[in-house]
Amino acid sequence: MNEHDLICQLLPMLPTNPQTCVGAGDDCAVLDVGTPERLLLFKTDAVVQDVHFTSDAGWERVGQKALSRCLSDIAAMAGTPVSALITLGLPQQFDVAMVESLYKGIRNRAEEFGLSISGGETVRTTEKLFLSVAMVGWIPRHRLLLRKNMQVGDAVFVTGELGGSLAGKHLDFVPRVLEAQWLGEHFPIHAMMDVSDGLASDLRHFITASACGIQLLSEAIPISRAAKVAAKQDGKSPWRHALCDGEDFELLFTLPAAQAVALLDAWRGQFPELKLSCIGKAIPEKEIKIWSRKTGSKKFDIYGYDHFQ
Amino acid sequence: MNEHDLICQLLPMLPTNPQTCVGAGDDCAVLDVGTPERLLLFKTDAVVQDVHFTSDAGWERVGQKALSRCLSDIAAMAGTPVSALITLGLPQQFDVAMVESLYKGIRNRAEEFGLSISGGETVRTTEKLFLSVAMVGWIPRHRLLLRKNMQVGDAVFVTGELGGSLAGKHLDFVPRVLEAQWLGEHFPIHAMMDVSDGLASDLRHFITASACGIQLLSEAIPISRAAKVAAKQDGKSPWRHALCDGEDFELLFTLPAAQAVALLDAWRGQFPELKLSCIGKAIPEKEIKIWSRKTGSKKFDIYGYDHFQ
Repeated sequence: MNEHDLICQLLPMLPTNPQTCVGAGDDCAVLDVGTPERLLLFKTDAVVQDVHFTSDAGWERVGQKALSRCLSDIAAMAGTPVSALITLGLPQQFDVAMVESLYKGIRNRAEEFGLSISGGETVRTTEKLFLSVAMVGWIPRHRLLLRKNMQVGDAVFVTGELGGSLAGKHLDFVPRVLEAQWLGEHFPIHAMMDVSDGLASDLRHFITASACGIQLLSEAIPISRAAKVAAKQDGKSPWRHALCDGEDFELLFTLPAAQAVALLDAWRGQFPELKLSCIGKAIPEKEIKIWSRKTGSKKFDIYGYDHFQ
Repeated sequence: MNEHDLICQLLPMLPTNPQTCVGAGDDCAVLDVGTPERLLLFKTDAVVQDVHFTSDAGWERVGQKALSRCLSDIAAMAGTPVSALITLGLPQQFDVAMVESLYKGIRNRAEEFGLSISGGETVRTTEKLFLSVAMVGWIPRHRLLLRKNMQVGDAVFVTGELGGSLAGKHLDFVPRVLEAQWLGEHFPIHAMMDVSDGLASDLRHFITASACGIQLLSEAIPISRAAKVAAKQDGKSPWRHALCDGEDFELLFTLPAAQAVALLDAWRGQFPELKLSCIGKAIPEKEIKIWSRKTGSKKFDIYGYDHFQ
């Protein structure tokens, strides 16, 4: 049994309460803590040495990555980050300069987004360092961009370019907090998430949560330069790298197709440096199909990254 | 450099924002998220295999402990717990039944306190299991029971009995959430924290945060039966076990001495099964003194548990 199946099996047993609007299964939990116009976002994310990073990454980048992953989940709800707590698991023999570098990466990234680091706990681990980040943020009470809200007829968009993240982007990406807030404020976004496990995998999360499927446009998948470099090295196609590598931390979202052109126009004015691609549409059949000029429409049988495979 | 010194050095560098009422340094961070009558509590706590528990503890008790530690921090602010997120670090080879037991312990303890488990993330670790819990809760906006609020003339109280926790209490304790809420509602508590590192150590956290010191009454320290058993085994005194063992998860708090008798009376009516001891008073000198019938007053030179020593 892999991680995903295990968690899916455990989720229905977990207790809830009236303050919990959205529990497990979306990018963040959503809580109603009595704030008149807002709902609270709540998220944790952990990185582990030799699983999510290696010590040669540079500790400042590791700190930055740990915080950015959580910020990317807040972004996936078009939320505003407020505060984070850091849990640092340190081996008995630790290097003070290393911890200072980690915190430097955390601090700089937090300052960029007006985020408070409201506490830093350190626990001893037996071997490898880990860094667990908990974050709270908020969204306007009416603006719940949940995965389940994807509707038949929606256009499906993704920001940036995908694939080859391991070459550096997985450490250096800037979470799409500002872009997501702008989207939430200016367009009737239905569903949104961040691309963390790879587009092939994350599209499946979208359709699992919602009542529809997705027809993907093969030629529209935005392929990064890093994906092309990785493809040269290992002989897989750049396209497959873009779909499967994961850790892109781009925004994947849907909105009514009638808004697609207006969005693309407005986006170019607002974020001229960042690509936005319409990669498909939501369809009634609860499956993923892929359409390409060469082969027409067929079943999509590519999967992304699974942490436990 | 130990954990405490390291964190103290890093804290002043951490960014904050206007929504952060209390950052690092108390039992929980306190945030103002725009709720008219409440403030938000935010806390994380992690346990690591072979550091905070061993695999022979039984996984249900380990899950229970991980959640209870965080609940104890919410209790230390006399708060109401709302929601928790679980980050479970699992080695590649994991036993599904073990994870189910862990979650059973978490679920049962959450249900006791009306807490929602709003998400469960699982990450792969290279070796030992870890469990990091993030929790949010709330307090009434006017009731900030911070460590720094201890005032000269306060009586210092502790609930329960101390020491010998390793024999079982560190896994099975019930966090003092209800007792703390009752205290906050019925008495003008100045400062409160939970006893996690051992009374000797935690009293020092109190005086570091506040403008006063503490005069301790040696004979008033409540010594548990488990502390006496431990003392028989290792030849240290039960009194020293009560002061230094840690993981008692009792409430340590202060209030104006004029309220002390009324509190003791009301407490006996409300919680007849749980001991409450007045163990000293807050004094102007910023140090800890200990008074005993035998030796009179002298400097207190005993320290508690340090995770990194």
